[in-house]
Amino acid sequence: MRLTLAVVGVGLLGGSIALAARQRRVAGRIVGCDRSEGVLERAAACQMLDMATTDLALAVAEADLVVLCLPVDAIVEGAFRAAAHCRPGALITDVGSTKGGLVRALDGRLPAGVAFVGSHPLAGSEKSGPEHARADLFENRLVVVTPGAKTPPADVARVMTFWHALGASVVPMPAEEHDRALAMTSHLPHVVASALAGVLPPEWQFLTATGFRDTTRVAAGGLEMWRAIFLANREPLLHVLGRFRARLEEYTAALAAGDAEALARLWLEGKQSRDALG
Amino acid sequence: MRLTLAVVGVGLLGGSIALAARQRRVAGRIVGCDRSEGVLERAAACQMLDMATTDLALAVAEADLVVLCLPVDAIVEGAFRAAAHCRPGALITDVGSTKGGLVRALDGRLPAGVAFVGSHPLAGSEKSGPEHARADLFENRLVVVTPGAKTPPADVARVMTFWHALGASVVPMPAEEHDRALAMTSHLPHVVASALAGVLPPEWQFLTATGFRDTTRVAAGGLEMWRAIFLANREPLLHVLGRFRARLEEYTAALAAGDAEALARLWLEGKQSRDALG
Repeated sequence: MRLTLAVVGVGLLGGSIALAARQRRVAGRIVGCDRSEGVLERAAACQMLDMATTDLALAVAEADLVVLCLPVDAIVEGAFRAAAHCRPGALITDVGSTKGGLVRALDGRLPAGVAFVGSHPLAGSEKSGPEHARADLFENRLVVVTPGAKTPPADVARVMTFWHALGASVVPMPAEEHDRALAMTSHLPHVVASALAGVLPPEWQFLTATGFRDTTRVAAGGLEMWRAIFLANREPLLHVLGRFRARLEEYTAALAAGDAEALARLWLEGKQSRDALG
Repeated sequence: MRLTLAVVGVGLLGGSIALAARQRRVAGRIVGCDRSEGVLERAAACQMLDMATTDLALAVAEADLVVLCLPVDAIVEGAFRAAAHCRPGALITDVGSTKGGLVRALDGRLPAGVAFVGSHPLAGSEKSGPEHARADLFENRLVVVTPGAKTPPADVARVMTFWHALGASVVPMPAEEHDRALAMTSHLPHVVASALAGVLPPEWQFLTATGFRDTTRVAAGGLEMWRAIFLANREPLLHVLGRFRARLEEYTAALAAGDAEALARLWLEGKQSRDALG
């Protein structure tokens, strides 16, 4: 496959898609689009694009595949705007961390001949910007693809083939199931890390070691991105937050009672779960 | 300084002390003591000891410095047992993660001529055992030393000099202040990581990425070690758990209300705190 690829939003993920598609010869031509001239200049400096433009219509006009690397609250609008300028047969996907709202808004609703299939690569970094992009970002990572009820199977296959070609494993999953799972596996850890970092008094910063730093690493992520994800996935996130808070209450009760047996059960269940992740 | 050094408990920390003391020529002779023959054999295989024994009296008889690398609930008894066999002028320290109870039990209470000064190196790993020991474990790490009211300044200086010689920065601090701070910077992250790992349903393990893994890494630590720390530092830990749970309630309320402004404030406070750690 030698696609004409349009990457809309050339940050860490968009830049990594461009680098990986070039290095693996997945794309014959790569067009980068961003509203920021500065981002496009930094991306161009990394030699990842054949063309860079702030003009979305121009960017997608010849594309076989358009990848929207936008905040989750900007993807629906971005998809409609891109689709209006795509040629028939073009396929649009995204890298958003929540999927249910997108599939409800877009599945079967774009102009005839243009299709949308949602994607979520479980890859990223607390860093941002094209200068942190890496050609190997998707290698051995998982990409979840979330077809809707009206998505033609051939389009699902095209999107899965694309991510495979960038080195990822790909699994299809209903969007609502994806959102429930990711609330637990990704969005909850971000809330937890942020809350933990938020209660650290500055005068004790020098007494933090790798434990505190690792547990809070993802709290350094960008505000706009994470707030949009939290708001887009409110109900599933509130559900898992409730489960987590109940678990903390169990820990608190065991500690308050000095209950060594209960502490052992809680710790070992957590350890067993963490050990299983390898 | 070319000490005769006795390391009691030859796990990850004890083994790293032995390796560092040898490599940096801090000790002329290093004796390792452990109740487990198997641990001593694994330590001996790493060439970190001049003598290995299960006999505490033999291990400490000639020592200038005894470092107790025992679980926090075994240090007081270990110090009294070791002190009974030490020669006059010997100094005992430890590597325990909680300090108030030790200082209250030991400061000025050992046989004449033998002193105790508590230490806590902020270094470690979720791994354990002498085979994971590293000579550079203390380089550029912080060691907190917690003198009691009756500790002679010269003994504090000797312990600080020892840790400096292993490559660490050293700061003296009252034991109670240490325990309040470490409840926040170390013990709370362990409870949080454990609770988060504990609520992950096994069927969603394959949907975890680096965010979940980093946030829960320390949940893989050993049960005996962490349960003893939690119980030894119950009151300060319950206090910071309360602050963390209040913060989660704020997050929950902001999410439930869809309050973008409150979410921004919570996220940015956490991000600012985390960014300050570098």
